[in-house]
Amino acid sequence: MTPSQLILTALPGIPLIEPGDDLGAEIGEALLRAGLKLVDGDVLAVTSKIVAKSEGRQVDLNDVTPSAEALRLAAETHKDPRELEVILGESRKVLRTRPGLIIVEHRLGFVCANAGVDHSNLAADGSTRADRVLLLPENPDASAHALRERFVGQGGVDVGVLIVDSHGRAWRMGTVGVAIGVAGFPALVDLRGEPDLFGEILQVTQIGLADEIAGAASALMGQADEGHPVVHVRGLPYPLRDGSLAELLRPEEKDLFR
Amino acid sequence: MTPSQLILTALPGIPLIEPGDDLGAEIGEALLRAGLKLVDGDVLAVTSKIVAKSEGRQVDLNDVTPSAEALRLAAETHKDPRELEVILGESRKVLRTRPGLIIVEHRLGFVCANAGVDHSNLAADGSTRADRVLLLPENPDASAHALRERFVGQGGVDVGVLIVDSHGRAWRMGTVGVAIGVAGFPALVDLRGEPDLFGEILQVTQIGLADEIAGAASALMGQADEGHPVVHVRGLPYPLRDGSLAELLRPEEKDLFR
Repeated sequence: MTPSQLILTALPGIPLIEPGDDLGAEIGEALLRAGLKLVDGDVLAVTSKIVAKSEGRQVDLNDVTPSAEALRLAAETHKDPRELEVILGESRKVLRTRPGLIIVEHRLGFVCANAGVDHSNLAADGSTRADRVLLLPENPDASAHALRERFVGQGGVDVGVLIVDSHGRAWRMGTVGVAIGVAGFPALVDLRGEPDLFGEILQVTQIGLADEIAGAASALMGQADEGHPVVHVRGLPYPLRDGSLAELLRPEEKDLFR
Repeated sequence: MTPSQLILTALPGIPLIEPGDDLGAEIGEALLRAGLKLVDGDVLAVTSKIVAKSEGRQVDLNDVTPSAEALRLAAETHKDPRELEVILGESRKVLRTRPGLIIVEHRLGFVCANAGVDHSNLAADGSTRADRVLLLPENPDASAHALRERFVGQGGVDVGVLIVDSHGRAWRMGTVGVAIGVAGFPALVDLRGEPDLFGEILQVTQIGLADEIAGAASALMGQADEGHPVVHVRGLPYPLRDGSLAELLRPEEKDLFR
């Protein structure tokens, strides 16, 4: 872990993604435009939004009939009961509700607001936009793996892929980018047993590396601008390996704040 | 917010810092060694450890007499009661304890394990090391401001400074770098009211930018290696402004998970 520079480049010119679009091809072209040729150890951080869009994860709320539970939550949260029905379908458990707010354990295992269901930036056609929402990718690890295989297969290089979403946090203000899908990347770096500079065993044991990189990539992606949905990362200070979202999920029985 | 590249450089050759050392001078020399001349918008991310060391925040546990409360917590956590006494002195409130674990609201307002009191990497003299601990800086915002003024004064440039610590999190595994001191940097970026690409008002409103940058800087700093305690950041996709740790602290009454 000696490299001394981490370079994040927002890939230029990726168009608005529609269902069925070939995301790998778009990323490949954007890498060319940026003059970047992938090398071993490079990482691609991709916003969950364009992965979800390419996978057709849009839902028209006019097709949704809210359940009794969704109607009950609508009274608590003042949210659209149809959207709450979609959120419930993406959740294992509702953790907290307040007016305007619902925080759940997502079916994928992480804790977030609205189960990641989004209703901004949906379509260029403004007429029905208010009634359409976008879910998170069905299986972000699998989406990351598919993208990774594409680039590994093309170039014979070992690259990592992160699918990035923005989550709120306990205790601290502001959303931060986190990894919700991981392929070929050490999501967690385990330093247990490694001596520090003076040979003392470190107390702090595991680094959430995927989230640390996802955060900075997310800063470059922006929120209001879909023009930078993919960030290329070079100079990761740890070697790549197989990895998955599961590493980043604290088991409920070990979570003192759920 | 159009820059497309974020470049983090771990500054080489910063020596082990001792109480009273001139951190600004060491950073200035390391910038020279790296061939970096600060320009407007650059950011320096500095690990809290070397700030605390330069400020003499070491405590010899042999000088500490544990209170009744520290002795009670020692029975619960199986930790050294003298270390718990130091932790209590740095805390507003103990939130959770388990064997081997104490999570507090730090006197500075954030939630973290052990009140940030650290007993690794303390001294080159191994003999008394096990009995010495390092507290967080007394006032990290002030430390960040002092460093910032130094570089602004020297070069006439507008730079930001972040003091970075590694914290565990609710819900997710792994520690991540976060900002515990902020100067001249937009800790939180408020996008409320900014329309998205299609003119819809964004739901997600505030980005924890200081933590997103602190996380990536922390990845470069490493944990077992104190050789990279300062990271230079260029290409921040938002303009600098005054900022502070307080922006990042979720008020207890707005925190559903404390």
